[in-house]
Amino acid sequence: MSQSTPGSITGAGSASFTPPTRRLMGPGPSDVPARVLAATARPTIGHLDPAFVGMMDELKELLRYAFQTANDVTFPVSGPGSVGMETCFVNLVEPHDTVVVCRNGVFGGRMLENVRRCGATAVVVDDEWGTPVSLDKVEAALREHPEATLVAFVQAETSTGAHTEPGPLVALAHEHGCLTIVDTVTALGGCPVKVDEWGIDAVYSGTQKCLSCPPGLSPVSLGERAVRKVQDRTTPCQSWFMDLGLQLGYWSSGARTYHHTAPVNALYGLHEALLILREEGLRAAWERHRRNHLALAAGLDAMGLSLLVSERDCLPQLNAVVIPEGTDDAAVRTYLLNEAGIEVGAGMGTLAGKVWRVGLMGYSSREDNVLACLEALEAALQEQGRTVTPGRAAEAAQRVYAG
Amino acid sequence: MSQSTPGSITGAGSASFTPPTRRLMGPGPSDVPARVLAATARPTIGHLDPAFVGMMDELKELLRYAFQTANDVTFPVSGPGSVGMETCFVNLVEPHDTVVVCRNGVFGGRMLENVRRCGATAVVVDDEWGTPVSLDKVEAALREHPEATLVAFVQAETSTGAHTEPGPLVALAHEHGCLTIVDTVTALGGCPVKVDEWGIDAVYSGTQKCLSCPPGLSPVSLGERAVRKVQDRTTPCQSWFMDLGLQLGYWSSGARTYHHTAPVNALYGLHEALLILREEGLRAAWERHRRNHLALAAGLDAMGLSLLVSERDCLPQLNAVVIPEGTDDAAVRTYLLNEAGIEVGAGMGTLAGKVWRVGLMGYSSREDNVLACLEALEAALQEQGRTVTPGRAAEAAQRVYAG
Repeated sequence: MSQSTPGSITGAGSASFTPPTRRLMGPGPSDVPARVLAATARPTIGHLDPAFVGMMDELKELLRYAFQTANDVTFPVSGPGSVGMETCFVNLVEPHDTVVVCRNGVFGGRMLENVRRCGATAVVVDDEWGTPVSLDKVEAALREHPEATLVAFVQAETSTGAHTEPGPLVALAHEHGCLTIVDTVTALGGCPVKVDEWGIDAVYSGTQKCLSCPPGLSPVSLGERAVRKVQDRTTPCQSWFMDLGLQLGYWSSGARTYHHTAPVNALYGLHEALLILREEGLRAAWERHRRNHLALAAGLDAMGLSLLVSERDCLPQLNAVVIPEGTDDAAVRTYLLNEAGIEVGAGMGTLAGKVWRVGLMGYSSREDNVLACLEALEAALQEQGRTVTPGRAAEAAQRVYAG
Repeated sequence: MSQSTPGSITGAGSASFTPPTRRLMGPGPSDVPARVLAATARPTIGHLDPAFVGMMDELKELLRYAFQTANDVTFPVSGPGSVGMETCFVNLVEPHDTVVVCRNGVFGGRMLENVRRCGATAVVVDDEWGTPVSLDKVEAALREHPEATLVAFVQAETSTGAHTEPGPLVALAHEHGCLTIVDTVTALGGCPVKVDEWGIDAVYSGTQKCLSCPPGLSPVSLGERAVRKVQDRTTPCQSWFMDLGLQLGYWSSGARTYHHTAPVNALYGLHEALLILREEGLRAAWERHRRNHLALAAGLDAMGLSLLVSERDCLPQLNAVVIPEGTDDAAVRTYLLNEAGIEVGAGMGTLAGKVWRVGLMGYSSREDNVLACLEALEAALQEQGRTVTPGRAAEAAQRVYAG
């Protein structure tokens, strides 16, 4: 063992990291409640420990509540939302399949990328960014492509703030003999997600949005038809890690076959976050998200700002604010971060520089966040030379809370 | 919105999870120090926050120290070790490639599975479980397959406790014009891993072994030749999430392009764990692992138990103890867990029922763990009707510590 090696690359220059104080009002992560943070810091135990296995069973049951499903196959994938997305695609899509992909924002585009990497044929249905997926266009695509096996779309487009009602699209897909994959990353916990009532076949989500957990896990749920498709594949799944046939050996109630080491502490956190959601109740959570959104929208309106998405289709948890002409996008976001500790998101893709994305997700969906954000935005716009009447936006918001 | 839906699937019956007290002496996760747990519980901030980006840069530098490399491409993949493994394979292997896969345990077999799912041709070099990879056999395989492009092997086989010296194998692969992928999941932090000195092209590890972090992240590092192979691919990477071309847009010091939401709190924990490793120093950590292993081995010997792997090739951090004839494998492990709060691992694959895997990894590699484990094993074997002289094993171990 050479004496010089360990010192030669020193990794020098760092100390324990203390994060600054923030209000997380971007597209996620959202603010994580102290209860959830405390849960993640409990002592790590083994992923095959009987006590841990018991916790996992509870976690799956709590996820079924969040997704409103009785699906047996409901569990958190050990990776961020994009791993949940890819898990659904690599298991449900084979190279000989044709998939209708609805694209009305960045994440529809990512679905398309997944379909292509599965070697399958994609039929793209494009809608304008900021609008929902068009049922008519999807119907036309399905008529034109009777060979299609799957329809994939995003319920809550995080890049635009547009909401697409899943029920009618899922019903349409089924009429044409197609399965469905629905992205509920930003939807789950913030607006109704009713997997069984709508008949969604495969759904994935993330933890760092309206569940207010740290990022890193992706809850998924598969219905019977989707499970059958996985079982009936004629080609092997291209991913070892994401192969549901292997994953379920660990997550199903029977064998607990070792597949990979589960992210124990992150799962403690998700368990606690789902408990909090159940304590509040789904309906109350949806109503809270709606109320805070309406207050924010009233405040923005009073400030002369508008949302990208019409009120009918606007997600309460993700508000894309149109950047007024002549305003410096980055300067405003930097002002909010440095002067008020508020993080909002930048626009993505074709909306870069055109919108700010203000998230009111999970624990971040609070009156004090709405008021702090409106106040800071007024100050930031004043800095930009716009005429603003300080306090007017907050007053408008408070009228919503009072009403 | 139907009034009955949210209540119909209730997710009922759970409360906050409090894990039992354990000493984690299996194949990982290992005991996580309080400093690391506390770090994971710090408030979540945005993954694009300038403060977080600064922490990431430090983290990459600390990882370079752990891996003993100056590789620019050194970062934690947002998933367990098996995602790190798959990331290396799906980026460095194309369908037209031939890969020599060394299999002397479960994880070599998993590498093989990865090669197959990449659509490439695998040449398997088998060695007996519990022995290192044979240099001669690999050389013969490379002579027989001049078309081979890559050699893949596991430095520290977690399923057997056998150590394979990477230096000579990497040199051999290079002589034959092959790149190398080396699995250091259980190695990193517990025994020398010298990426640059040995010339390893691509390496991956895990956080829950000798780094004593919660599971869920996989540090990887790629040298120049490996990066060039990724850039020169003629076929697209089959995974969107694991595509290094996309991942590096986020992790490299330049653009910080959004790819996925990084697991913020898990990264806080890894940063802290790597600081602890740097404070102790790699050499001191390796020596500590060696000393505790020798003490455990002496105690086991005094108890009449033997290790599967010869001392020359035995990993200090993973000790596969041969289960004596007539002893009930599961009963002993259950006794250790329930009576002493000690988790040891079961045998895997062909070693199921034949060995217990006693891990002394990272923060779990401590004198008090060694002594507690020996004492509990004595009691468990006595329960099994074996003649044991209580305290004799601990005495033998303490002679090692004293000497």
